Amino acid sequence: MEAYFDNGATTRVFSQVKDIMIKVMGEDYGNPSSMHMKGVRAEQYVKEAKENIAKTLKVEPKEIVFTSGGTESNNMALIGSAMANIRRGKHIISTRIEHASVYNPLFYLEEQGFEVTYLSVDKQGMISLEELEAAIRPDTILVSIMYVNNEIGSVQPIDQIGALIKKVNKDTIFHVDAIQGYGKYDVYPKRWKIDLLSVSGHKIHGPKGVGFLYIKDKTKIHPLILGGGQQKGMRSGTENVPGIAGLGLAAKLIYEDHESKISYIRGLKERFVRQVMELPDVKDNSGEAPHIASISFKGVRSEVLLHALEEKGVYVSSGSACSSNKPAISGTLKAIGLTKDYYDSTLRFSFSIYNTAEEIDYAVDCLKELLPVLRRFTRR
Amino acid sequence: MEAYFDNGATTRVFSQVKDIMIKVMGEDYGNPSSMHMKGVRAEQYVKEAKENIAKTLKVEPKEIVFTSGGTESNNMALIGSAMANIRRGKHIISTRIEHASVYNPLFYLEEQGFEVTYLSVDKQGMISLEELEAAIRPDTILVSIMYVNNEIGSVQPIDQIGALIKKVNKDTIFHVDAIQGYGKYDVYPKRWKIDLLSVSGHKIHGPKGVGFLYIKDKTKIHPLILGGGQQKGMRSGTENVPGIAGLGLAAKLIYEDHESKISYIRGLKERFVRQVMELPDVKDNSGEAPHIASISFKGVRSEVLLHALEEKGVYVSSGSACSSNKPAISGTLKAIGLTKDYYDSTLRFSFSIYNTAEEIDYAVDCLKELLPVLRRFTRR
Repeated sequence: MEAYFDNGATTRVFSQVKDIMIKVMGEDYGNPSSMHMKGVRAEQYVKEAKENIAKTLKVEPKEIVFTSGGTESNNMALIGSAMANIRRGKHIISTRIEHASVYNPLFYLEEQGFEVTYLSVDKQGMISLEELEAAIRPDTILVSIMYVNNEIGSVQPIDQIGALIKKVNKDTIFHVDAIQGYGKYDVYPKRWKIDLLSVSGHKIHGPKGVGFLYIKDKTKIHPLILGGGQQKGMRSGTENVPGIAGLGLAAKLIYEDHESKISYIRGLKERFVRQVMELPDVKDNSGEAPHIASISFKGVRSEVLLHALEEKGVYVSSGSACSSNKPAISGTLKAIGLTKDYYDSTLRFSFSIYNTAEEIDYAVDCLKELLPVLRRFTRR
Repeated sequence: MEAYFDNGATTRVFSQVKDIMIKVMGEDYGNPSSMHMKGVRAEQYVKEAKENIAKTLKVEPKEIVFTSGGTESNNMALIGSAMANIRRGKHIISTRIEHASVYNPLFYLEEQGFEVTYLSVDKQGMISLEELEAAIRPDTILVSIMYVNNEIGSVQPIDQIGALIKKVNKDTIFHVDAIQGYGKYDVYPKRWKIDLLSVSGHKIHGPKGVGFLYIKDKTKIHPLILGGGQQKGMRSGTENVPGIAGLGLAAKLIYEDHESKISYIRGLKERFVRQVMELPDVKDNSGEAPHIASISFKGVRSEVLLHALEEKGVYVSSGSACSSNKPAISGTLKAIGLTKDYYDSTLRFSFSIYNTAEEIDYAVDCLKELLPVLRRFTRR
């Protein structure tokens, strides 16, 4: 049996998404910048994708800018808004549990003279609203807080955070990395007072190499990539039309019959966690997110267990799989105060609609078989 | 009949490229950063694509960095190398006929305090080696010159340029925008002393949304997009595996039986230009490139003729189609000294292996029919 439980790293593309991409690549392969019919038809796909996405967020289509993925969206949001607002101040607030595509741009901005306050999190991976409120200053130009954490699945109260930021400093731009949240929850930037929101295609059964940044109308932000002035100058380069068409369709599909999709996934997660917690010496670090279970197996190195599971066809991740050169010890697991006994013994199991209860039970059986053996080895 | 003569804007994807992308999206959809088999298999596609591309250029696979396309490659090459070498100097040399994805990053660098010398071109769109030699200074950190011009198809002697640059200042980095040249000519960065070379997938029957930057080993350059450290930190973000696999295969295919492919395309261009030049009041601005014909039709506005041809199923471009918000008057056509009579009457016809002699003859017949009618309208 095969059980792909690494949907936090990437997901299988919806077959309808694949179909539309095939059609665009083979028939409607025009360049949206071309003035003839083939260009116009290509432009239509881009327009429709924007409309589909805007509808899921209850925003305007013109507020969607397509990028090459979540990492570019985060880079553009942070560097683009910091540089565009430098005259108003140089203070930024973020958290200790952000993804590398947020914290590395923040490190870059620190080198450029910006000051960044990193909010701590509690054992559940949640920030404190009081700490946030105290951190906001008149020169705070940007707050960047992730919606759903990629390693443990903690879910920040973005609506309360948005209201709080704007109450204290209405000019502070609020960026949300929603790469693990979009498609799992309803996300409403207007109501939640979000100015910038990053989304990736391949986390929602869309294509790799494409994502978008929601940019609230009139938000001051510089483009990151310059050139032919596509997308109203905000993101130059010939639009990735097949990818964009695929992303637009994936966004539409993931939000169709959304509640039942999510309760199905949550059911899988709960079934898994419930059974795993019956095993000895395990610790559940999972947050509220429906698709992510973070489990520590005391006395077993995560890499060893990962490869043992792999041999049985169960594919999981140790920490976050998005980062290729990350130090062994995860930032988030440290930030939530996991002790050494546990933090290099932690695996992430992440689920999607393509998983089944049988796969869950199979994976638990594998763990039951493997853990005693591996622990014996480790203890020797 | 349909005749797509806008291959300079974008090309139809090879069917084998489409097939490999379908396979990757449906079966081998892993994240290359994942440690299990699905990740390893995804990484294999990336590795193989690098090897295929490196072979066509006679360079090392590790010198290839994948990007989201030609525009990002150019941005990264220019901004990344300028910023990394700022301590050695702030002088850059380029030309007056570059694509917007080169000149807009250059304008940005000028705002950051860099000084840019723009070389002029002659009526054939060729730079002067003497002018280049005189422009190179001890503080010249970068020279960026396009290989094949996208509007008229002039082809710079990159090998001579590379030798000259390194003779005058061996520390000057040489960047070549080869987006219209790669796949049309053999390109040998090592022999030609190129340090950075930009290529786009969708100009060579590969996918949109993917390209690469050749970075000669040990070249000092900063990444443009920061995050999880993929591609040895040079370009973060989950690799666009289907796109990369498609690009790698397209590169391999375009260089298979390459001479016969190119002589076929060149034959189409020559057949077209020969017949068109028999019509009255036309001017041929075309350079040496096998796939681009730039023709001015005196007394006819290019947009009007473009749409008249479109109605007959002939798809062409006025100037370059890569830029969506470009002013009506093209930079290159002005730079080669075209008079007003001609420069807003110019169309680009660009060919590929999917075009046929019948399409050429059909397009010429359409022009024969349309030009007298449109000229009558214009003159009234």
